[in-house]
Amino acid sequence: MTRVLLTGFEPFGGETSNPSWDAVQSVAAEPPAWTEVTAVRLSCVFGTAVDELREAVAAYAPHLVLCVGQAGGRPDLTVERVALNLDDARIPDNAGHQPLDRPVVPGAPAAYFASLPVKACVAAVRAAGLSASVSQTAGTFVCNHVFYGLAHLIATEHPGLRGGFVHVPYAPQQVAGAAQPSMSVRDVAAGLCAVVTAAISTTADIRSVEGAIH
Amino acid sequence: MTRVLLTGFEPFGGETSNPSWDAVQSVAAEPPAWTEVTAVRLSCVFGTAVDELREAVAAYAPHLVLCVGQAGGRPDLTVERVALNLDDARIPDNAGHQPLDRPVVPGAPAAYFASLPVKACVAAVRAAGLSASVSQTAGTFVCNHVFYGLAHLIATEHPGLRGGFVHVPYAPQQVAGAAQPSMSVRDVAAGLCAVVTAAISTTADIRSVEGAIH
Amino acid sequence: MTRVLLTGFEPFGGETSNPSWDAVQSVAAEPPAWTEVTAVRLSCVFGTAVDELREAVAAYAPHLVLCVGQAGGRPDLTVERVALNLDDARIPDNAGHQPLDRPVVPGAPAAYFASLPVKACVAAVRAAGLSASVSQTAGTFVCNHVFYGLAHLIATEHPGLRGGFVHVPYAPQQVAGAAQPSMSVRDVAAGLCAVVTAAISTTADIRSVEGAIH
Amino acid sequence: MTRVLLTGFEPFGGETSNPSWDAVQSVAAEPPAWTEVTAVRLSCVFGTAVDELREAVAAYAPHLVLCVGQAGGRPDLTVERVALNLDDARIPDNAGHQPLDRPVVPGAPAAYFASLPVKACVAAVRAAGLSASVSQTAGTFVCNHVFYGLAHLIATEHPGLRGGFVHVPYAPQQVAGAAQPSMSVRDVAAGLCAVVTAAISTTADIRSVEGAIH
Repeated sequence: MTRVLLTGFEPFGGETSNPSWDAVQSVAAEPPAWTEVTAVRLSCVFGTAVDELREAVAAYAPHLVLCVGQAGGRPDLTVERVALNLDDARIPDNAGHQPLDRPVVPGAPAAYFASLPVKACVAAVRAAGLSASVSQTAGTFVCNHVFYGLAHLIATEHPGLRGGFVHVPYAPQQVAGAAQPSMSVRDVAAGLCAVVTAAISTTADIRSVEGAIH
Repeated sequence: MTRVLLTGFEPFGGETSNPSWDAVQSVAAEPPAWTEVTAVRLSCVFGTAVDELREAVAAYAPHLVLCVGQAGGRPDLTVERVALNLDDARIPDNAGHQPLDRPVVPGAPAAYFASLPVKACVAAVRAAGLSASVSQTAGTFVCNHVFYGLAHLIATEHPGLRGGFVHVPYAPQQVAGAAQPSMSVRDVAAGLCAVVTAAISTTADIRSVEGAIH
Repeated sequence: MTRVLLTGFEPFGGETSNPSWDAVQSVAAEPPAWTEVTAVRLSCVFGTAVDELREAVAAYAPHLVLCVGQAGGRPDLTVERVALNLDDARIPDNAGHQPLDRPVVPGAPAAYFASLPVKACVAAVRAAGLSASVSQTAGTFVCNHVFYGLAHLIATEHPGLRGGFVHVPYAPQQVAGAAQPSMSVRDVAAGLCAVVTAAISTTADIRSVEGAIH
Repeated sequence: MTRVLLTGFEPFGGETSNPSWDAVQSVAAEPPAWTEVTAVRLSCVFGTAVDELREAVAAYAPHLVLCVGQAGGRPDLTVERVALNLDDARIPDNAGHQPLDRPVVPGAPAAYFASLPVKACVAAVRAAGLSASVSQTAGTFVCNHVFYGLAHLIATEHPGLRGGFVHVPYAPQQVAGAAQPSMSVRDVAAGLCAVVTAAISTTADIRSVEGAIH
């Protein structure tokens, strides 16, 4: 059995739900074959969220960590390729903090690449009949903060651990009346299962055309 | 049993599938309670498509006709409110014709409103956990042509018939690698079931805020 | 000299400016050759706005009326083709009224087509180096209300008058910090000059491919 | 006099013009006060473009280098914050090469931050009445390649040089008939002048809310 830690976030930005948490719970309830999935909900708070992630990694000793967050406005599942050493909050986090232009980890590298086969993950979601793409930015809010925290943890303390970040669209009920893309939580969960399966079964990433012109 | 005629379209514009046809077949295979659903595929051809629709109405004597088409780029199910007496093709249809600025029916009204409870239909899709909105334009291509043809048929020959048009997003496989919204065909079919159920069970439309600022 | 009446709107929806009014004032200050342009600001209020328009038409006896409104989120100048006999407010107007599903003029046609050469107008804006397209819906708020009011006035009382509606994007200062399209007011004014010139110099519209697939 | 090197790109991706080159020529023809601006056109070719940039830096010994590229689909001027050590071409470059998942400079850091006051630059564009934002990704094509090449050149050979990258929207003529945002080249040039002026007159960046949630 492969141990997988999935994290979702609590609601933020005035929303009352967060599809990342709804979806990872659903995956944990019906995990992919040969996996044991633990779902953990992270606070949408700078600092605290990384502490909670670190504790969960210590507690569950996973082989794979997939952090998941809501990217309102994106139309598909996006597998993040780059964690940036930058906190620059557009809105206050759930503890009321709004850091501007600060490093996540002072003195650490400007960025880490995900230790996931990002293109294989995208291909797996598509093979499951859903829409996905590679993303080069996870933003500069708590999602990127957690992603960088995970990547730094892997780089400095858990070199054998694989980990990455997936952004998911709004759930349909979040966009009622707005011309915004959304994805049903059932589809998001199916897509995450595909990502998990690809991540644990692919050692080298595939070569495919997924780059961005800008 | 309420007899429902659902139409979808053949692929067009270089696509190899059309989610409207895939979804209406799926609804016909598992129809909503108390309905008998017939699915008919229309040609994406001006004139011909309305002929096919007229024949299907004659053959099946439905209580409700719901025509469905693909609106690539829209993020949700859109229940059309206005059929316009205008053919103005952006691309050639599947027979190679590209009419410009011609009426669908010379001398007929500039527009018809859908004889569907459009807001109740939108509410029903949302209650099913999916995203929907009211649309004021079905374009000026074959979709609007069929919608106007249906509305004119109802106005002139079948006054008791109810009918409308629903546009659906791209299927995920149509947007692989493009930053475009999509909806899984399973979700589209579930949304269409909700529309059918609302349409046959609602006599007067609900009052709700679904208008468009522009 | 051709007399042209241009109308813009007061701000609405929480905005402190409205690019439609800023731009029509600018056109009036430097009108196109051979035209005399009067700019009138309309209230963003159902009923009142059409009354104000009617008075301005009576007062200035224009040969051409071009009503202009803000379409926040659209990326280009859109020349409206269809005025719909429907008030269905998404938000309250500036007098606090929010009509739902009511006709603009009870008993009048479902829609009017603009009495403008809409494709020639679009071509003229492009020839001026700016972006434009034909639109099939002006929404269901005060903009469409005024457009329908104008079209009905022309149809019933001023058969020789030409008139239409142009929607313009947000001004840049309205979208600071948001990933929304905008157009500088200078460019909007230049585009409106091109529309006016095309409208008064073109008798039959051009044939060009400007239709919408949906 | 402050010496400024501005680079634009030749057309690519089937386009016949590139607004980045049109705009930087315009800035060079009418440079901001107290600056001497040289405009250089770069090939849209991996490797070659960085060679050309390096030669131009050697030839003109600028105090500031601003590389500019086209970001078709973006609605505003975007000041790039992060250069990524990754070539992953979505389409072939103008020499027919399409590198996948290769570093720009093997062994160099995963990313560099721009040595520009990016938030002051954004504020300056807005003060000029135009729309701008900070971007966290310049993509993985030749634009990012040049940006990374510049940042690496600064880091390794020209520590006193300031440099950055600005992406600009499509020009209006590139989007005729498509529902895509654009900006007139005149406005783009005015925005670039504002960026240049801010970059040479600001030593520490301003603190302002410009971060991205995702």
